[in-house]
Amino acid sequence: MTSATVLNLKEQMHRVGASTADYSLTSDLFPLRHFNTAQRETGTALHGKRERASVSRMMSITRFYIWYFLSMGLGLACVVCVCLWNSQWRGGFAWDGSSLQFNWHPVLMVTGMLVLYGNGAVLYRVPLTWGENKLPWKLLHAALMLLALMLSVIGLCAVFGNHNASNIPNLYSLHSWIGIITAILFATQWAAGVAVFLLPCSPGSLRKLLKPQHVWMGGSLLTLGIAACISGINEKLFFVLKGNTNGSLSYSQLPAEALLGNSLGVLIIAFGLVVLKILSNHEWQRPENQPEDVPYTPLLQEENQ
Amino acid sequence: MTSATVLNLKEQMHRVGASTADYSLTSDLFPLRHFNTAQRETGTALHGKRERASVSRMMSITRFYIWYFLSMGLGLACVVCVCLWNSQWRGGFAWDGSSLQFNWHPVLMVTGMLVLYGNGAVLYRVPLTWGENKLPWKLLHAALMLLALMLSVIGLCAVFGNHNASNIPNLYSLHSWIGIITAILFATQWAAGVAVFLLPCSPGSLRKLLKPQHVWMGGSLLTLGIAACISGINEKLFFVLKGNTNGSLSYSQLPAEALLGNSLGVLIIAFGLVVLKILSNHEWQRPENQPEDVPYTPLLQEENQ
Repeated sequence: MTSATVLNLKEQMHRVGASTADYSLTSDLFPLRHFNTAQRETGTALHGKRERASVSRMMSITRFYIWYFLSMGLGLACVVCVCLWNSQWRGGFAWDGSSLQFNWHPVLMVTGMLVLYGNGAVLYRVPLTWGENKLPWKLLHAALMLLALMLSVIGLCAVFGNHNASNIPNLYSLHSWIGIITAILFATQWAAGVAVFLLPCSPGSLRKLLKPQHVWMGGSLLTLGIAACISGINEKLFFVLKGNTNGSLSYSQLPAEALLGNSLGVLIIAFGLVVLKILSNHEWQRPENQPEDVPYTPLLQEENQ
Repeated sequence: MTSATVLNLKEQMHRVGASTADYSLTSDLFPLRHFNTAQRETGTALHGKRERASVSRMMSITRFYIWYFLSMGLGLACVVCVCLWNSQWRGGFAWDGSSLQFNWHPVLMVTGMLVLYGNGAVLYRVPLTWGENKLPWKLLHAALMLLALMLSVIGLCAVFGNHNASNIPNLYSLHSWIGIITAILFATQWAAGVAVFLLPCSPGSLRKLLKPQHVWMGGSLLTLGIAACISGINEKLFFVLKGNTNGSLSYSQLPAEALLGNSLGVLIIAFGLVVLKILSNHEWQRPENQPEDVPYTPLLQEENQ
């Protein structure tokens, strides 16, 4: 049994309400500080408690993975829908200032600022990542968020390029205001995250102070991203589905493209709410601190701030 | 010192991480079960811990009220903005099927489904409500949510009436899909909330099981409400600010009405995020259970499920 496995076991037992007596299970590695309590337990009662704790832990992990795979399925459905919409109904993609360049905008914002972002946000909730060494997962979290940010920036460049080439003013609609605020806050959050939680010179007290703000801002950015996506899809469908004499239907007549666009919006909402559900459930949070039995080791080896 | 005051003090000391030894402060009312631990503390160290716990508690409550009053200020600003927009720029209100009837829609949805709803959601976070008897606050929570739901339903009637009188199809845009889903889920959440958490016949085990879902759905409804409001304001501004030869400006030229509408959208986002911040901070949550020292009393007298 590795040290990391024992740590996980101990933390998860604590989460599911296991008695301190249950910790004697790991007595080969951890001091049995609650021996007096354990002494009072009969062997049968102790066994029953262990069984219950184990079942409860398994159920919690199973529930997590159901929600996690649901979020992945919904995220995949969002990406498929937005690609299908822009490739099949909006004429595909180009980078020439035309409306085909614009088509990159919804695809990259939904893929980057929403789906990839959401997946990066819930990374620490995956029990598999709860070992002693948080650093590789922290680097993966930062990398996923950087990729999401880069896709979002390219998505913004797509719309600015198309607007400039077509003499359409930038940043006047509420959708664009919310979108640009989200992108600026996302970039700020990423830079602050690297500076505070990755750079070795950042003090532990600062990390502890700013972690709740980082987590809250993370959830808020997802809410902002949802609002930006929904208003953007709504606006786009009104722009392009005007109906005319050659038989094309208007938005209000709900042609197939309208149904696809609206369904994409509903999927985005569903994805966002599932991710926010995973983020808000404290039972699934990575433990705040390593158990006190394990000595703290400095950054770049093992750390948990 | 009333029993409720002592309860609050004990719960809040626990939240701010006070040692069990600190509970001896309330030894006149609660058994000193941790006497052995307390014995090991010197008088000075104990006094220092109490001081720190008291300061920490005060700071936590102060932080709560800063965010709470910020949410109230932002909520008020949202209501003022949406009323000003529809009364001064959109021609005021009527109930005759005209566009003046439509004007009730944004006012009632923002006031009901967003601001009143948000205020009802954070009610249990106000430390003032943390006494032994939860029932009056539960009734106020249900009443605020019912009022929010009624305003939302009247707001929906306003838009359906206007659409029907003007032969405009209903429920085709993504905004309307998100809005109607939000309203249906809100009504379901209210009815389920009353059935599970207010009716005396509802078992405690069911309440315990469904409380996390009720809380999660509450936050999700706020996110849905934000997305519906943002997409609705964005859509309305595109509809009405088309610009024409008599000198009125289009949305892209950012006239005063566009600035007001966009600002309303930003205020709605800010209000929503502040409310979600308050809801997500576990430090400000009403304690899950009354301390075990206090006997549980049945529903309609004192209860805390």
